[in-house]
Amino acid sequence: MSPSSSVDAPSILKRHGDAVNGYFKVLRDRYADAPPRLLDSIEYSLMAGGKRLRPALILECFAACSAGSDTSLGRQTALAAAGAMELIHTFSLVHDDLPAMDDDDLRRGRPTNHKVFGEAMAILAGDAMVTVAFEVLATDADPAALPALVRELAAASGPQGMIGGQVLDIDGENTVLSLDGLQRIHRMKTGALLTSSCRLGAIAARQESLLTAMTDFGRHLGLAFQIVDDVLDVTSTPEQMGKATKKDAGKGKNTYPSLLGLEASQREAESQLSAALSALEPLGSAGAGLRALAKFVVERTN
Amino acid sequence: MSPSSSVDAPSILKRHGDAVNGYFKVLRDRYADAPPRLLDSIEYSLMAGGKRLRPALILECFAACSAGSDTSLGRQTALAAAGAMELIHTFSLVHDDLPAMDDDDLRRGRPTNHKVFGEAMAILAGDAMVTVAFEVLATDADPAALPALVRELAAASGPQGMIGGQVLDIDGENTVLSLDGLQRIHRMKTGALLTSSCRLGAIAARQESLLTAMTDFGRHLGLAFQIVDDVLDVTSTPEQMGKATKKDAGKGKNTYPSLLGLEASQREAESQLSAALSALEPLGSAGAGLRALAKFVVERTN
Repeated sequence: MSPSSSVDAPSILKRHGDAVNGYFKVLRDRYADAPPRLLDSIEYSLMAGGKRLRPALILECFAACSAGSDTSLGRQTALAAAGAMELIHTFSLVHDDLPAMDDDDLRRGRPTNHKVFGEAMAILAGDAMVTVAFEVLATDADPAALPALVRELAAASGPQGMIGGQVLDIDGENTVLSLDGLQRIHRMKTGALLTSSCRLGAIAARQESLLTAMTDFGRHLGLAFQIVDDVLDVTSTPEQMGKATKKDAGKGKNTYPSLLGLEASQREAESQLSAALSALEPLGSAGAGLRALAKFVVERTN
Repeated sequence: MSPSSSVDAPSILKRHGDAVNGYFKVLRDRYADAPPRLLDSIEYSLMAGGKRLRPALILECFAACSAGSDTSLGRQTALAAAGAMELIHTFSLVHDDLPAMDDDDLRRGRPTNHKVFGEAMAILAGDAMVTVAFEVLATDADPAALPALVRELAAASGPQGMIGGQVLDIDGENTVLSLDGLQRIHRMKTGALLTSSCRLGAIAARQESLLTAMTDFGRHLGLAFQIVDDVLDVTSTPEQMGKATKKDAGKGKNTYPSLLGLEASQREAESQLSAALSALEPLGSAGAGLRALAKFVVERTN
């Protein structure tokens, strides 16, 4: 897998998205003995037409870090990491939408998991996605890279990563946070998985010397992503987003627009994008696909 | 760590329980940057005075399979597996108690997690226990054994193990099951983690030749455990059990007493115990501690 020669973000996303979707089809066969309704509930959310941004980051960072000298085992490891990451991301959406959490009825233009399968099944489907994510790594990834891969994914997901960020987010509702406080939540809640995706690409490529660059790229991209998300919540319609909008303000959530205003938020997103692009310099021309993905994230309209 | 020379189950449970409790104290320091309320919620359930049966099985199976030739790395691996398993077991209890699932107010004589910390935090604390379980293995276990350890724990917990069993259990409420159907649920819901505990001991000891014996022992012990659990739900008081009793019948749950009657259930538990003890024959005298634990499980009164 060479770094993307096309610098067209939609086609990079499509190519990597197709790869991970194909992998998920193979995975389903491994769970033929599981209760069918559980598999249906997992698949309903996993195959709901997400952008596969995190898998694309893993696969493109892997290709950029390998710079043409990748192996078949490395590619298989990156694909397993991409599948595992998307499972963790999807689990987090299913649990976040639950009545006890954000209580959302709509996700990607369709009823949320618990609206279709019931609350108990949505909880269990989310739980199962986590165990499957780690099983996938242990089954398909390079055993020599497994300790680093599992530590990376677990740390990014856990109490000091995404799950911890969700706790802070819930606790911060109806309290006015400082910009530092807000950034801490976002670094954990959405930033941790995005940063980790970039790092997993370097780990799968066994290019630990590029971990710092991938970490910096992921952190700035993660913040830019979240600012754009907050801005879109204010400026877009439910039809564009496939989910309810303007919910943040109604729930007393702290957002970049509520703390900085819209214009300053947009400027901050641009500045984070610049910093992300600078972090890619060590990759040279192999970073072209990642540059395109980063710009796409900031310029997207849904 | 030699196989237990004492064949006194309470002192075996106490010794291994102390080891895993000490390990959990070390773990807490690793998560110092996590939201304190999340750590409190995790600790509330993790340190609620459980019997630590699964950790004891892992550590005692490890000792029995090593038969005195264990290494420091092996002992550390077994302890990490014991901690990871108890985290998964505790997560399953916290989520099972949720209003959307079994809706229980009492567990081990205290209010359930969501009664104290709220539903959102109970969901997130359970989620975090799963990621921490895998992080613990990747950080502390023998890297050479990690693929087998992660696959084992994930498979036992996931769609074809404990979580799948919980789905079948919920779906089976208010439907009369066959004995085969009931056994399938129990093999998955409670049996998978108990069997896996025995297997993890053999894997940590790097004694794959004993995996079949450990699997057979765990399966029969798991069924005996569940039958006794069902019987105690009928015959004991909430004070003895530290949780509500006689709930199974009220919820239309299928149980051994409801399908077989009390006496036949007790005979079946004894017969499963005999089969479990036979499975230990390859271990010779190193299996004395496991024999004591198995008898304890069937003769317990809470």
